[in-house]
Amino acid sequence: MDDEIATLCPRFHYAIEVIGRRWTGAILMLLVQQSSARYNELLAAVPGISDRLLSERLRELEAENIVERCVDPGPPVRVSYRLTASGRELQPAIYALARWAETWIPVERTRAKAS
Amino acid sequence: MDDEIATLCPRFHYAIEVIGRRWTGAILMLLVQQSSARYNELLAAVPGISDRLLSERLRELEAENIVERCVDPGPPVRVSYRLTASGRELQPAIYALARWAETWIPVERTRAKAS
Repeated sequence: MDDEIATLCPRFHYAIEVIGRRWTGAILMLLVQQSSARYNELLAAVPGISDRLLSERLRELEAENIVERCVDPGPPVRVSYRLTASGRELQPAIYALARWAETWIPVERTRAKAS
Repeated sequence: MDDEIATLCPRFHYAIEVIGRRWTGAILMLLVQQSSARYNELLAAVPGISDRLLSERLRELEAENIVERCVDPGPPVRVSYRLTASGRELQPAIYALARWAETWIPVERTRAKAS
């Protein structure tokens, strides 16, 4: 393939643009690691995210059918989020990137540019 | 892990924020598929990217030691880009996401929200 430029799969491009949105990868990694998380747990666990942006990201992931919102009527009412079947299948991609990061991203760099 | 929120690995978070930047995933996918690409080939192959943003993304990827810039003095001078050793090791993560996208992203959706 040296003489010709590869063509870009539009589905891959769409997927990386959705999953790569700021903080979305972090939200997905947390949900891959545990079966469900409450809104406030995610807010505490994602460094630097605001209340407004967490809501927005979760709504985007719901619209993409990657995350689902579950309401336990309580009392007290409890809202939690978990991955859909589609979202759970992101695990290999997320873990492959995590392995790459462990090998190639020096910890010092994450401190210098923490988000 | 149902009772406790997982903690987020800062190296993963850093990696997904770099790789997820708009258009960066597309650039990486093209470079994973071919050993090197000239600037204008990338400009033509990444849908919707501007000249300014392609330069910016390539500079970011060089700063992260993921992409290297090679200058063939010519004449004519030819500048091309290729993955470093670190960048080449992103292949499993990129291909895993591409497989996910082939299964879960309907082609129609990529048309509706084409970037």
